[in-house]
Amino acid sequence: MKLVVAVVQDQDSNRLSNALTKNNFRATKLASTGGFLRSGNTTFIVGTEDTKIPRLLEIIKDNCRSREQMVSPVSPLGGNADSYIPYPIEVEVGGATVFVLPIEQFHHF
Amino acid sequence: MKLVVAVVQDQDSNRLSNALTKNNFRATKLASTGGFLRSGNTTFIVGTEDTKIPRLLEIIKDNCRSREQMVSPVSPLGGNADSYIPYPIEVEVGGATVFVLPIEQFHHF
Amino acid sequence: MKLVVAVVQDQDSNRLSNALTKNNFRATKLASTGGFLRSGNTTFIVGTEDTKIPRLLEIIKDNCRSREQMVSPVSPLGGNADSYIPYPIEVEVGGATVFVLPIEQFHHF
Ligand code: NI
Ligand code: NI
Ligand code: NI
Repeated sequence: MKLVVAVVQDQDSNRLSNALTKNNFRATKLASTGGFLRSGNTTFIVGTEDTKIPRLLEIIKDNCRSREQMVSPVSPLGGNADSYIPYPIEVEVGGATVFVLPIEQFHHF
Repeated sequence: MKLVVAVVQDQDSNRLSNALTKNNFRATKLASTGGFLRSGNTTFIVGTEDTKIPRLLEIIKDNCRSREQMVSPVSPLGGNADSYIPYPIEVEVGGATVFVLPIEQFHHF
Repeated sequence: MKLVVAVVQDQDSNRLSNALTKNNFRATKLASTGGFLRSGNTTFIVGTEDTKIPRLLEIIKDNCRSREQMVSPVSPLGGNADSYIPYPIEVEVGGATVFVLPIEQFHHF
């Protein structure tokens, strides 16, 4: 048994949540900010058996991997039009930081 | 010294909090959702000495144990009266998922 | 590699956050309440190499150490003037509770 702590971008949080449920992993989600990734992010904690760790890591990787994305900037409502970029730009999104922690005891009441 | 991480239903959160304080355990509470238990839940983290772990687990069990509860559905205000259940129904509430983690260092500044 | 969990008072949270960034530590922040310290507090989680743990602990200590502070009570707007203390009083603020946890695996996707 291990406790897996994964910090992922909010953007990928729902997709990861659904993928975990579909694969019978039960995760608890904590709202978090900053640091490992651009704010806001979600911290998932998942308790699971040692043999299932590789599959869990694969699911996190598949759903949260850092990648380039084209973003169309929104029109600057009441903002400074001079600084407005009128074409899509490429930004890096996603990414996950994952810690696998040893457990001494696990209980379910 | 160990770090105990307990995910409990919101319904039991205040009662557990009071029981921990009364027994001189100091817990930090994190708002969390989904996964181990029906959403919303609260994640407690408690640092404590090895000898006090059994007592801590007992308190969590006593205050958060999964159990059946009779619930009287509220009247369907402006809702569909056809789907209204006019008698109390039995639902499962509570439950706690608890991880006991080893600690390499503990500091209090 | 270790996972450091630090519970600090909200009052010191921004200062610690800035100090960590300045020293190239990446922290994830979780809103938390009660327990170890007077509510509300912030729980920082920081993954870092073993050799950097002493420096990390030093930064936490420097920015969150428990200390006495003079507080000028605000005027009791519409409150009970009888219980109003018209001079500054000394209160204890700050303090941090820190756990250093072993890690079995660390991944960054
Ligand atoms: Ni990254
Ligand atoms: Ni259960
Ligand atoms: Ni203290």
